[in-house]
Amino acid sequence: MAHTEDGPRPKYQRIADTLREAIQAGQYSPGDRLPGENDLMAAHGVARMTARQALGVLRDEGLAEARKGAGVFVRSFRPLRRRGIQRLAEQQWGNGRSIWSADIGNRSLEVDQVTVSEETAPERIGAVLELAADEPACVRRRRFVLDGKPVLLATSYLPMPVVAGSEITQEDTGEGGTYARLADLGHKPVHFREEIRSRMPSKDEVARLSMSEGTPVILICRTAFTAKGRPVEVNEMTLDAASYVLEYDFDA
Amino acid sequence: MAHTEDGPRPKYQRIADTLREAIQAGQYSPGDRLPGENDLMAAHGVARMTARQALGVLRDEGLAEARKGAGVFVRSFRPLRRRGIQRLAEQQWGNGRSIWSADIGNRSLEVDQVTVSEETAPERIGAVLELAADEPACVRRRRFVLDGKPVLLATSYLPMPVVAGSEITQEDTGEGGTYARLADLGHKPVHFREEIRSRMPSKDEVARLSMSEGTPVILICRTAFTAKGRPVEVNEMTLDAASYVLEYDFDA
Repeated sequence: MAHTEDGPRPKYQRIADTLREAIQAGQYSPGDRLPGENDLMAAHGVARMTARQALGVLRDEGLAEARKGAGVFVRSFRPLRRRGIQRLAEQQWGNGRSIWSADIGNRSLEVDQVTVSEETAPERIGAVLELAADEPACVRRRRFVLDGKPVLLATSYLPMPVVAGSEITQEDTGEGGTYARLADLGHKPVHFREEIRSRMPSKDEVARLSMSEGTPVILICRTAFTAKGRPVEVNEMTLDAASYVLEYDFDA
Repeated sequence: MAHTEDGPRPKYQRIADTLREAIQAGQYSPGDRLPGENDLMAAHGVARMTARQALGVLRDEGLAEARKGAGVFVRSFRPLRRRGIQRLAEQQWGNGRSIWSADIGNRSLEVDQVTVSEETAPERIGAVLELAADEPACVRRRRFVLDGKPVLLATSYLPMPVVAGSEITQEDTGEGGTYARLADLGHKPVHFREEIRSRMPSKDEVARLSMSEGTPVILICRTAFTAKGRPVEVNEMTLDAASYVLEYDFDA
């Protein structure tokens, strides 16, 4: 029972706290209209500016969004659940299912942009893939859309000497996707490393992911290794943080 | 080789791209001064406003920071690497090491604030812990500081009926921490679920974590289960995203 260092909280913060708790308790559901400035002024006996600041706090936190002329509403957060570990389990891609299908249940996650090219990989990628200076990478760039909203940009790098001539160099990689093809080629991925960061998006990312103001991106860099420890793919993913919950389940 | 939808990029974006690539290639290291507005105007033949916008892009992305009167510098990103899975492996907490020690190598991560209390858990936590309406939770709130900078807030909830009378209700939980004590009590955690989100911080979080502008928080909600599947701890963590890389390693 040690030191708490809370000073007195300003009034607008306490009003925001009350609204936040009501949202978290389910008293207001996603899409519901929150009390407006006039309501808050009457209920808490505060000035308009204070009421406005309270609603501003919730907007800044991404809990609420203003709709012009209509008021402030609880933001819908109906995220995709990306299960890192189950998702990559062999039984999923081993039998022809895409590794993405586990994400979405009955919601339709679709690739709406694909490019495949042969390129010199950026230095950081070349280093991880252990590419010789003259070895190019096969680069697969995809954008994924959920219910019409782009949610994920993925850029996948594979050593060209490994994948040349396979369907991995095509837009459509066939049943089971890239990992099933790597297995066909004798480079079955069996070990994975995922590294996760978060930052504010670039203007370019805001545009490509149609992101709302004040929303960060989650970056996942996934490296796939064969049983011999050879790295065969690096996939740099950029996720709209408002659209995703990542989940990892594991044993001690 | 499909549709690319890139239009012509504005000049300031292209200058920002050049600087970004130079930073990523290590041409400028963390703490280095970037070319100033005058340098960029001369090098690229652009107006001051364009040079300023280019530097603004890098600042908005968290890659660079302005220091008053001194210029724009490459931001230090020397993050903690939090290894989700190895970190919770039994050999670590089983022999008296704190689960946090794997994070830090020779850097000193310290708890600078701790409170322990008996409380009614919020509904979402009570539901996960399967608490009866009248069962309180033991709530452990800690702040972790690295090199003097707060980086992590952790609020841990445990069922009071399980932990009453143990060191878990004390500030100092003893060798091996909470998980070793749960094992002593016959509730050894063996399975973990971590759920990860990211959002902008609340004003309160900005203050408690001394966060820089334009930096999101990463939220990790970890649930620990016994071999019988009983949830014995929910730990809600709030991380300064500028201070952390999360890592998960696993097999297919």
